[in-house]
Amino acid sequence: MLFFTQCFGAVLDLIHLRFQHYKAKRVFSAAGQLVCVVNPTHSLKYAPTRCTAVQTSVEQAVLPPCHHHEAVHDPQLVPCTCPLFSCPWEGHLEVVVSHLRQTHHINILQGAEIVFLATDMHLPAPTDWIIMHSCLGHQFLLVLRKQEKYEGHPQFFATMMLIGTPTQADNFTYRLELNRNQRRLKWEATPRSVLECVDSVISDGDCLVLNTSLAQLFSDNGSLAIGIAITTSKVHNAENEM
Amino acid sequence: MLFFTQCFGAVLDLIHLRFQHYKAKRVFSAAGQLVCVVNPTHSLKYAPTRCTAVQTSVEQAVLPPCHHHEAVHDPQLVPCTCPLFSCPWEGHLEVVVSHLRQTHHINILQGAEIVFLATDMHLPAPTDWIIMHSCLGHQFLLVLRKQEKYEGHPQFFATMMLIGTPTQADNFTYRLELNRNQRRLKWEATPRSVLECVDSVISDGDCLVLNTSLAQLFSDNGSLAIGIAITTSKVHNAENEM
Repeated sequence: MLFFTQCFGAVLDLIHLRFQHYKAKRVFSAAGQLVCVVNPTHSLKYAPTRCTAVQTSVEQAVLPPCHHHEAVHDPQLVPCTCPLFSCPWEGHLEVVVSHLRQTHHINILQGAEIVFLATDMHLPAPTDWIIMHSCLGHQFLLVLRKQEKYEGHPQFFATMMLIGTPTQADNFTYRLELNRNQRRLKWEATPRSVLECVDSVISDGDCLVLNTSLAQLFSDNGSLAIGIAITTSKVHNAENEM
Repeated sequence: MLFFTQCFGAVLDLIHLRFQHYKAKRVFSAAGQLVCVVNPTHSLKYAPTRCTAVQTSVEQAVLPPCHHHEAVHDPQLVPCTCPLFSCPWEGHLEVVVSHLRQTHHINILQGAEIVFLATDMHLPAPTDWIIMHSCLGHQFLLVLRKQEKYEGHPQFFATMMLIGTPTQADNFTYRLELNRNQRRLKWEATPRSVLECVDSVISDGDCLVLNTSLAQLFSDNGSLAIGIAITTSKVHNAENEM
């Protein structure tokens, strides 16, 4: 009898430990993720698509496709990559981040995993939610855009771009994750370089695409939470080669 | 010197073992997954949306919303759930599977994880790719549909439905996964019951949605491979409650 009582006690202890582990894991993952509230930037001066060059030419020529200023010849000199305004600024890759912060007031966040909380999802298209993400020694630009690709049917497009060259971008993998109402949507891809155009990535649809009803299912009180994680893709490549 | 030679040999052995492990792992996972080639069923007699009832009424009334036959009163008597034709067949849930196999020649596959390989993705909309999946003691219906929600812009919609009641469907989670060209897209959700209508699930967009360009990125030689996995959702619920 004593044996059974002890056995029962041990089982109870195990269940308790398991419960504590789950709780700790949840608290830890919640504490490890920085939640950033991102307000929309409703574009009044929405420029038509600025990029017409074919994307594949970027890798070959290492020249920015968005040369809306004919004078750009230095491959390191890139036009402003902020997708919101037809910004006349041009500068070297190294100063793009400070330009985005100072001129366009885009926030920058640190951390391997962050939660991007876009507010006021109901606002009419075109609307952008933008943030910079500093991680693994590089800066990334996350753009969430509400746009009417088909008139009367707004959709949401989310993509991540490296503030660096396409060759540097190939070393990373970004993941965007939505999780709510017993639904989960994950998008994983190699980030594009800001030398390519955010407009063309979105018009190609080579990004996370959400229709309005799905965006509503994932939203809470008009806000959409997107989990972001960036990793180096070297391990993936090594596995694929085997 | 001999010591260093032996050390080097040991390191080489370890690398070799590691490589063998990766290879075995890949072969195993490939062998564990049943790949099923699914040819399209181009619908000539495409019926207009047969479901007009609100989905929430299904859970409350446990009555099929698609009563295109006014005589349906028995809650266990459901109209044919094949979404392709305006099929006049009506029957009990228990015989829906045999009806789908015999009348509509829909294949049924066994296994926890399968790969659904849809061929001829270029065919014009509307086109359906349908299969039944037998798993965890239940039968599921996977529907991939190419449809023009917005004229001139075909999209792909994929969803999984349980051949059972909505209450039974709540016990499961299905996952659809696309993985190609350094992009990965995962959709996880609770399957709907076939008592609800596949048409309404797709028109609501509460499923995996792909635009044509993304479908092309994930396709290989005009075929799209979708990894399918079904699990019981009880563990998830237990974790959420903690």
